[in-house]
Amino acid sequence: MDETLAITGRTQVKRLPERARYHRADLNAVLDEGLVAHVGIVTDDGPVVIPMVYGRDGDRLLLHGSVASRLLRHFSDGAEVCVTVTLVDALVLSRSQFHHSMNYRSAVVVGVANLLTDLEERRTALTAIVEHLVPGRSRESRPPSLAEARQTHVLSLPLTEASVKVRTGGPREEPEDLTGGSWGGVLPLAVVAGEPLPDEQTPGGIPAPAAVTSWHAPRVAD
Amino acid sequence: MDETLAITGRTQVKRLPERARYHRADLNAVLDEGLVAHVGIVTDDGPVVIPMVYGRDGDRLLLHGSVASRLLRHFSDGAEVCVTVTLVDALVLSRSQFHHSMNYRSAVVVGVANLLTDLEERRTALTAIVEHLVPGRSRESRPPSLAEARQTHVLSLPLTEASVKVRTGGPREEPEDLTGGSWGGVLPLAVVAGEPLPDEQTPGGIPAPAAVTSWHAPRVAD
Repeated sequence: MDETLAITGRTQVKRLPERARYHRADLNAVLDEGLVAHVGIVTDDGPVVIPMVYGRDGDRLLLHGSVASRLLRHFSDGAEVCVTVTLVDALVLSRSQFHHSMNYRSAVVVGVANLLTDLEERRTALTAIVEHLVPGRSRESRPPSLAEARQTHVLSLPLTEASVKVRTGGPREEPEDLTGGSWGGVLPLAVVAGEPLPDEQTPGGIPAPAAVTSWHAPRVAD
Repeated sequence: MDETLAITGRTQVKRLPERARYHRADLNAVLDEGLVAHVGIVTDDGPVVIPMVYGRDGDRLLLHGSVASRLLRHFSDGAEVCVTVTLVDALVLSRSQFHHSMNYRSAVVVGVANLLTDLEERRTALTAIVEHLVPGRSRESRPPSLAEARQTHVLSLPLTEASVKVRTGGPREEPEDLTGGSWGGVLPLAVVAGEPLPDEQTPGGIPAPAAVTSWHAPRVAD
């Protein structure tokens, strides 16, 4: 459980290395709490960063998209990708503008993603992505058909070359800024859900199912 | 006010083009509400995506970092960057796992960032970044000194080549999934602030200042 990630030239944190974490448990915690990954690839036109939903199956990150997506085809072709997930925990409010900061946890995974060709594996992966977004939802919704799996590219990125960076705590201050007896600290932030809104196809009086009403970002539950 | 962004080969949305927006007002709205930009650059080791705070000054995006940052030096060197900001508005809960989705607004900006060399311009930019994170906070905190501006690289990226993608509304459904009279809809999500937490240097009884207590993501205020 306390497995350490391999530190390579690409994943070693150079700036503020005291914020780095290289344990798989830290990586999994960030990935499991995040909703959107920012996926970077290199195209002929330069770098492209696209937001994608994702899932995690053990030590694989699962990404998906339409088979019609040119970008997805591009990076399923053996190209290097960089996948970054960032969670914002708090705004850090210093007495000086210079020391304003953010408490965050971010995960960066690099590597080559491979396309899942097996349709059953794709169906399982699509369910894992739904479960990642809304835990328990797979029991309340119809699983992907073979036809749907055929329409979907699923990519699997090994979680081997990765790093996590974390900032916690209050603001840094210059001694001369502390003489005035002023307020400094942090403003915690969290992603929270509002009331579920049924669509027009939902018959009146049907309550939202359990996975929807019990949804919360893991952080909020702590 | 209704200025249209230039559509280029790099910014034209190819997948689901009906979700694309090319008005500057849409771009500004996403950028102004976001807290973190995911900045993609191409290094010798492949693509790298780093989360960064940012600010906006008219039609320029402002990014900053330590002069010691190798990455920042890299992309201040005339290299192409791709900056993506994504706001998650809701989880979209379909009767089928296949049609699960997310309501979001995302902005993608591409171009070449240039380093601000003028120290006064850097000071102003640092204040703009603080104001972006916590509107009104610049009036409650000490402005950057010349020495602090000297320690900071500030990059300016023109907001000329950019696109916005937006998904709204309820789930798509297959007709056969609607026969059971089940619940489907959306679960709205928002970033909300908790109680401000003073640090140990804050004298007892001093309340958090106005910019901190009134902070909210713009969406929540709507």
